[in-house]
Amino acid sequence: MKPSTIKIQTSQDYYESLKGRRLKVYLFGELVEEPSEHPMIRPSVNAVAETYDLALREPELASVISPFTGERINRFLHISTSANDLVLQNKMQRKLGQNTGTCFQRCVGMDAFNALFSTTFEMDKKYQTPYHERFVAFLTEMHRRNFVIGGAMTDVKGDRSKAPHEQADPDLFVHITRRTSEGVYITGAKAHQTGCLNSHWLLVMPTMRLGEKDKDYAIVGAVPVEAPGITYIYGRQSCDTRSMEGGSMDAGNANFGGQEAMVIFEEVFIPNPLIFMDGEYEFASMLVERFTCYHRRSYVCKSGVGDVLIGAAANIAEMNGADKASHIKDKLVEMTHLNETIYGTGIAASYQGYATESGAYLPDDMLANVCKHHVTRFPYEISRLAQDLAGGLMVTLPSEQDYNNPETHELLKKYLKGKPNIPTEDRFRMFRLIENMTLGRNAVGYLTESMHGAGSPQAQRIQIARFMQLEYKKRLAKVLAGIEVIDTEAMVEEAGSYFGRVFEI
Amino acid sequence: MKPSTIKIQTSQDYYESLKGRRLKVYLFGELVEEPSEHPMIRPSVNAVAETYDLALREPELASVISPFTGERINRFLHISTSANDLVLQNKMQRKLGQNTGTCFQRCVGMDAFNALFSTTFEMDKKYQTPYHERFVAFLTEMHRRNFVIGGAMTDVKGDRSKAPHEQADPDLFVHITRRTSEGVYITGAKAHQTGCLNSHWLLVMPTMRLGEKDKDYAIVGAVPVEAPGITYIYGRQSCDTRSMEGGSMDAGNANFGGQEAMVIFEEVFIPNPLIFMDGEYEFASMLVERFTCYHRRSYVCKSGVGDVLIGAAANIAEMNGADKASHIKDKLVEMTHLNETIYGTGIAASYQGYATESGAYLPDDMLANVCKHHVTRFPYEISRLAQDLAGGLMVTLPSEQDYNNPETHELLKKYLKGKPNIPTEDRFRMFRLIENMTLGRNAVGYLTESMHGAGSPQAQRIQIARFMQLEYKKRLAKVLAGIEVIDTEAMVEEAGSYFGRVFEI
Amino acid sequence: MKPSTIKIQTSQDYYESLKGRRLKVYLFGELVEEPSEHPMIRPSVNAVAETYDLALREPELASVISPFTGERINRFLHISTSANDLVLQNKMQRKLGQNTGTCFQRCVGMDAFNALFSTTFEMDKKYQTPYHERFVAFLTEMHRRNFVIGGAMTDVKGDRSKAPHEQADPDLFVHITRRTSEGVYITGAKAHQTGCLNSHWLLVMPTMRLGEKDKDYAIVGAVPVEAPGITYIYGRQSCDTRSMEGGSMDAGNANFGGQEAMVIFEEVFIPNPLIFMDGEYEFASMLVERFTCYHRRSYVCKSGVGDVLIGAAANIAEMNGADKASHIKDKLVEMTHLNETIYGTGIAASYQGYATESGAYLPDDMLANVCKHHVTRFPYEISRLAQDLAGGLMVTLPSEQDYNNPETHELLKKYLKGKPNIPTEDRFRMFRLIENMTLGRNAVGYLTESMHGAGSPQAQRIQIARFMQLEYKKRLAKVLAGIEVIDTEAMVEEAGSYFGRVFEI
Amino acid sequence: MKPSTIKIQTSQDYYESLKGRRLKVYLFGELVEEPSEHPMIRPSVNAVAETYDLALREPELASVISPFTGERINRFLHISTSANDLVLQNKMQRKLGQNTGTCFQRCVGMDAFNALFSTTFEMDKKYQTPYHERFVAFLTEMHRRNFVIGGAMTDVKGDRSKAPHEQADPDLFVHITRRTSEGVYITGAKAHQTGCLNSHWLLVMPTMRLGEKDKDYAIVGAVPVEAPGITYIYGRQSCDTRSMEGGSMDAGNANFGGQEAMVIFEEVFIPNPLIFMDGEYEFASMLVERFTCYHRRSYVCKSGVGDVLIGAAANIAEMNGADKASHIKDKLVEMTHLNETIYGTGIAASYQGYATESGAYLPDDMLANVCKHHVTRFPYEISRLAQDLAGGLMVTLPSEQDYNNPETHELLKKYLKGKPNIPTEDRFRMFRLIENMTLGRNAVGYLTESMHGAGSPQAQRIQIARFMQLEYKKRLAKVLAGIEVIDTEAMVEEAGSYFGRVFEI
Repeated sequence: MKPSTIKIQTSQDYYESLKGRRLKVYLFGELVEEPSEHPMIRPSVNAVAETYDLALREPELASVISPFTGERINRFLHISTSANDLVLQNKMQRKLGQNTGTCFQRCVGMDAFNALFSTTFEMDKKYQTPYHERFVAFLTEMHRRNFVIGGAMTDVKGDRSKAPHEQADPDLFVHITRRTSEGVYITGAKAHQTGCLNSHWLLVMPTMRLGEKDKDYAIVGAVPVEAPGITYIYGRQSCDTRSMEGGSMDAGNANFGGQEAMVIFEEVFIPNPLIFMDGEYEFASMLVERFTCYHRRSYVCKSGVGDVLIGAAANIAEMNGADKASHIKDKLVEMTHLNETIYGTGIAASYQGYATESGAYLPDDMLANVCKHHVTRFPYEISRLAQDLAGGLMVTLPSEQDYNNPETHELLKKYLKGKPNIPTEDRFRMFRLIENMTLGRNAVGYLTESMHGAGSPQAQRIQIARFMQLEYKKRLAKVLAGIEVIDTEAMVEEAGSYFGRVFEI
Repeated sequence: MKPSTIKIQTSQDYYESLKGRRLKVYLFGELVEEPSEHPMIRPSVNAVAETYDLALREPELASVISPFTGERINRFLHISTSANDLVLQNKMQRKLGQNTGTCFQRCVGMDAFNALFSTTFEMDKKYQTPYHERFVAFLTEMHRRNFVIGGAMTDVKGDRSKAPHEQADPDLFVHITRRTSEGVYITGAKAHQTGCLNSHWLLVMPTMRLGEKDKDYAIVGAVPVEAPGITYIYGRQSCDTRSMEGGSMDAGNANFGGQEAMVIFEEVFIPNPLIFMDGEYEFASMLVERFTCYHRRSYVCKSGVGDVLIGAAANIAEMNGADKASHIKDKLVEMTHLNETIYGTGIAASYQGYATESGAYLPDDMLANVCKHHVTRFPYEISRLAQDLAGGLMVTLPSEQDYNNPETHELLKKYLKGKPNIPTEDRFRMFRLIENMTLGRNAVGYLTESMHGAGSPQAQRIQIARFMQLEYKKRLAKVLAGIEVIDTEAMVEEAGSYFGRVFEI
Repeated sequence: MKPSTIKIQTSQDYYESLKGRRLKVYLFGELVEEPSEHPMIRPSVNAVAETYDLALREPELASVISPFTGERINRFLHISTSANDLVLQNKMQRKLGQNTGTCFQRCVGMDAFNALFSTTFEMDKKYQTPYHERFVAFLTEMHRRNFVIGGAMTDVKGDRSKAPHEQADPDLFVHITRRTSEGVYITGAKAHQTGCLNSHWLLVMPTMRLGEKDKDYAIVGAVPVEAPGITYIYGRQSCDTRSMEGGSMDAGNANFGGQEAMVIFEEVFIPNPLIFMDGEYEFASMLVERFTCYHRRSYVCKSGVGDVLIGAAANIAEMNGADKASHIKDKLVEMTHLNETIYGTGIAASYQGYATESGAYLPDDMLANVCKHHVTRFPYEISRLAQDLAGGLMVTLPSEQDYNNPETHELLKKYLKGKPNIPTEDRFRMFRLIENMTLGRNAVGYLTESMHGAGSPQAQRIQIARFMQLEYKKRLAKVLAGIEVIDTEAMVEEAGSYFGRVFEI
Repeated sequence: MKPSTIKIQTSQDYYESLKGRRLKVYLFGELVEEPSEHPMIRPSVNAVAETYDLALREPELASVISPFTGERINRFLHISTSANDLVLQNKMQRKLGQNTGTCFQRCVGMDAFNALFSTTFEMDKKYQTPYHERFVAFLTEMHRRNFVIGGAMTDVKGDRSKAPHEQADPDLFVHITRRTSEGVYITGAKAHQTGCLNSHWLLVMPTMRLGEKDKDYAIVGAVPVEAPGITYIYGRQSCDTRSMEGGSMDAGNANFGGQEAMVIFEEVFIPNPLIFMDGEYEFASMLVERFTCYHRRSYVCKSGVGDVLIGAAANIAEMNGADKASHIKDKLVEMTHLNETIYGTGIAASYQGYATESGAYLPDDMLANVCKHHVTRFPYEISRLAQDLAGGLMVTLPSEQDYNNPETHELLKKYLKGKPNIPTEDRFRMFRLIENMTLGRNAVGYLTESMHGAGSPQAQRIQIARFMQLEYKKRLAKVLAGIEVIDTEAMVEEAGSYFGRVFEI
């Protein structure tokens, strides 16, 4: 990694930085020439670009002064060293959700940076390894360049009942295949990686708890997105080809979209200075758990996306002339109630964050899981209510081409008219936005990714179970039922973990 | 209408019958040459074709002997004259939902026929009009030909706070514009008409309660699908163009799909023998209410579609190697519980049906509304749970072209492998089916149409409110609270309506 | 059992029949002199008495002609030999729920009779035992006397991880301790037996599937309620002592209540002619499953209780002057929607019932479980909504004694006034009824018994899992995904069980 | 008000302070001699006493140094001047919920103090009135004495469609009936006042927005609990008399309970120095809204009560021998998830609090309402799940007297045995605790008070509607749909209110 020369400041800089990289990207059976300009990929690039623009428009919200370089950098690159830092991440996430109506794809990198910062610190402390120092050097360089970092975590996993080393095919989890004095070579594949193509660097990390025999799978390192040996196969989304049809209406949200790809590593080299874990398998779970703790609470972004959908539902009700009905207003209230619950539990996790040994702050695990668990339910209900308010036209509207075809334009303008003072085209566009967010391209991010990103619902339930301190609660009940007398000291001791934070002053 | 010559018996007959009609159908800004063979429209034709095939394979379930012609006809054309007839409709609907995984589009016609049969009977009784006789003649002819009947009910409505005659543009509801001694001419548009293009005849009906000044809107009549003056503008569905991409995997359910179009009438002629209401505005609400009563309970079909989705979720869990987890099994139970509730409340409405004056049987209104109201909620939850079981690949899977591209095929085969003994392609296809049903083309029918078809949720709540007999229930409570003594006679009288049927023996 | 002399016809006969029996009943640490007249027990006797009165007032609904005696008997004693018989049980149950607002306690006996009829038939067929004949003789005698039958099924169970014969204390399940040529002696205890004291006879039955070593637990027989060796210990209910305070207001529903007691058998004798199973352990599960199948669908009664609570909520909203608010009406609609779902799924189970080999009809198992599973959820939500409509006074109202105390009466009359034209006392009584049904005495039946009676929620989920035919559904999905071609024959075969009934014509 | 002489420090001091006051308290038709020692009232006194004990055991959590006296006082008397102060209130509330399993009744006074502090400040600023100064003097005195303050807010309201001055009976809202130079006389009644009898002073406040003609109703003042002219009529709770039966088992939670009474004012005098509003009707809504803003978020206490119920459910599952079943664990997770949502949204409201002009901090209104709205739903579901885990014995258990009666004790001990190593009595007590919290005395506080305290559900929906900023959200959607371009400045301006706080840095 050579010293940086250019620092990305504007979305324009960012667009430029993506050009001319020799990426091997497959889409619809073909290699893509210039991925960042492909009409189906472009909206996901735009969403990341907005993270730069926001930092310029609202620097307090979306940028910080790097403690490593002393320069202003994007907040997505910052290591949180206070609860307030964690809260500000959430505020920025909600704003970006509002501005893009989609996944803006930078949280994985942010959360991976934060998790690695403290995990490398604790690894070094235990093993006198050089990982934290290396990582800080890499981080500093990323700050200098103000780069976008993607994560590469979710292995394809193969047979879920077997550990990595037990798989029939050892490549079903990314692992080290070869070592030299300069570094290591890795092979394997990471599935559904959000925002990989439009990043500058990828952080490769293990996807789950590892055992002693999985040592070669305990590899963390950084690789440039264009590293030799990487193949990207682009993932399809519902209604993805609408962005290739040429218009701006049927896409629903023509500017912004998410991105997910399969990232295949074939003997990809990681030089020693960019290796941040190598064989310390017992730290894999710490890394994964800290990452998911940050990341589950990062789903506060969906409250920003929810704001857009609530706004869209309110618009369409008005355009239909139905906004005065009491049940319509009541449904908007319910949508808001659910949406704010995501926000409220998320920022509570951040506010109740605590310092790790490295000084980096980690959100409260219980509340982070509670937040994410709501995210696996409430966007679906908000979406259902939005469809209720929209009415059936949302899924039976003729195509944009028919709307623009002179032979049918007047007919459609006449018959798709809702409230007299509202242009038919506006109503048309609003239907398409709701379709986009509840069935189409951005439903992928608002719904299915909300379900599985940062761990599926059952993963949160397992974590909630770990933190729910039943023994402490059982004792409370026994005291009130007259079975035991209260043992205050024991209670304080048992409080430990979650209740320790709840009752911390 | 000339005497019939050919009777449709097989799906082959049916495909033939659709060819060569000069329909004016717009799609993607162009006139469609032969709609029934257009790759995007074909799946909806196939779904109707399956109604013919089923009648041959399982005649007891899907056909009856016509009391008018003495010949075996499709059950969709039959007038129910017993509760058992109503129940058998539901059983056939569930089976077709299972066989197609989509909306098979013939229920509107079936339910409209049944509603018109009794409504014309009661109109004639009151006004000595000839509608019932005319209708029976038309019905008989349809039986002879074993035709597919579509409905044309939902007007585009314009400003929802105004009655038809109050609209700025009188055409926002279909109405009579001209009369001759031979018949009437109508103008207007019907939005999101399910299964219109693949029908043979359309029944034009008013969409809501009408007032005295709306007399010209109180028109019911039959027109052939290819009647001069009709323009169809085809509705887009989520992921609709996948069926035009050439493969069979990415479409998810390559064979079957729904169809909805905007149907525009410009001075379309209806001859006198095919007019079944003309100006009897006060019968519009009876017609609409009976139609929705039949149709809300017809949504039992979604329990058949739900069977497919539950099966798909069970398959994918197994293919992922996760089917032994207790939470997976528990979610399948929950999906089933919800799905059977739709079926159970629907058939209860049919079983508790009752005879109208014409002899035609009408389902129980309360239970029909309860059934449909669940349909506006439970498919969404079943769908959410299916996405939970599927995992994220469902929305990040590469394209079929990439799967088939020799340069990426082996990589994808290797890395998309789940449980060892299951072909990767099967897993790929199962993900796509779930995508199809929860986000894609058939999500339109399973979710959004479930929400709005036969009336949006609020419409059911209004009907439930009408039938909930609060005064009767208030009296029950007063008696038990010691405020009143029981007045059995009054209670029996008050039972009326719904409780009259509940306690009928 | 001597030939009957008196047949019970009226509630008066019934009250008489309970007097003077030498029952050993403990309550509040004392033996109760005449249980049926104890103020806390009386309301449960009244509820059963209403089953006699209803049979006189509405004979078609609540009585039948016995095929065994040719005389008119209460429907609770009837063996269902058609789907319509099953449906009529449900209609009667709803009516009695409406008339009493509580559990009327005769369903256990009815459902046990029906289950035993077919199970003894099949036992005899297999083993040439005389159980069916004996049972019919006993049934005939019960018809002659028109008696009330209670069940005794739920053993206290001890350590739930152990089979009956494995328990440390063999008495934790009722079992045979001694045999003579005349009969057997049993010991053990049955917990929370609904309607035992106010019955005439008890049917003792095993509570679950048994194994070969549990042979002595495989005992079914009839004993008179006053049989020597039985001790009853009366169960407490929430707010039970209000019925002993003397007034009629604070009890909420002064006339009617449920009853549950622990029934302890110490060497109770059952003579041979009254033994209907003895050692045929493998039939225990058939008996239990059939009983629960009938009984789960019998919870349709709760829709009648729900009618009362909906009425009470509507009354109190009106009395508070808040009945015009749109959210109030909407909540009443929701309560009704949920309540009718219980009814609808219940009667669907009955309508879809089928004949056993004995000719007795059994409800559809899947739908019976779906019905009961809703009963474990919806009454809680209906109850929550009723409390919402009631307002806080429901739980902060002063006592009846304060209302009647001359020093506070005028103050309370003045300040508890709601809508001007409604007497304060009526409002007071309505609050108390809602308290009774959502927190008090009848909440026990409406909520907690709804949860656990006829099996706790998990028991229904296990049964739903057994009947959900995943293999059949998986095949449906594979066909539509293009993985398999349809194999109609196999499908028909696989349909089996539940889908066999769904698609039966 | 004379200068204080004694400061309450311990629960013992507190018990002493309540004795010998000449209160006019009616209960069961009689005047109560020494209310604080009445067995039915005592548990509610104990709950308040625990607030003193906690302050001694955990001073950081439950006490502060008064800025007015410089002495350590109970946190319930403190005016919050930072977000952290608000958060610490929540933490203390959760702890007290855990320690008492009931409503501890001091939040009304705390929240009223805080709301009055800022409202009197703003009144004075507008009208140069002396209210704030008077209030601070009163506050200081309360700090000196470390007293318990009760609120008196909820008028009985009469006909809810009429304003106070429009009521047939002017006393249906508390109002000034007479004035002298020393002060005013008030008449009226406050319903279901939590923790009035066991307080030292009551703050009388209006209950809702007032108009110009309601000037005499715009009265705020302090009165001692024993003020002449006050009559208390004690409210009944479910199972209240169990505390008078002598034992300690059947009560469920023998030590702690809530308290609600009707408080009737008949010409009660308030001297000028204790009047904090008199006629400034337009400030009534500010006072009420601020009070409810504090108070809705104070329902975080229910997460502490929920901890007890979750613990009780976990205990009983273990005692039944069923704690290893996966569905049991899953239900405990769900209960926890819901419970922590209450906590998370509540503390989020506190963390996102903001300064009023007086320096007192107010919680975020939107999140406070979201928190309370969950409180009207989730405790009911947690309660339902607790009943599911408990099993039916929870409502059919024999009485404590039967358990202790030598004639039945051994039988019950034998047959109520669950898991062998757990004493039967412990299991008995655990059932009773769950009954207490889900149906009995403390269900009143955990359920019905959760529903209606601090405003019924609809009141929260109205507030959520007020803060949901639909115009801002509609604009977001229009920008993404391509209807409008973004107008950042306007957005910032519009952010206002809630989004102003969300995006505040």
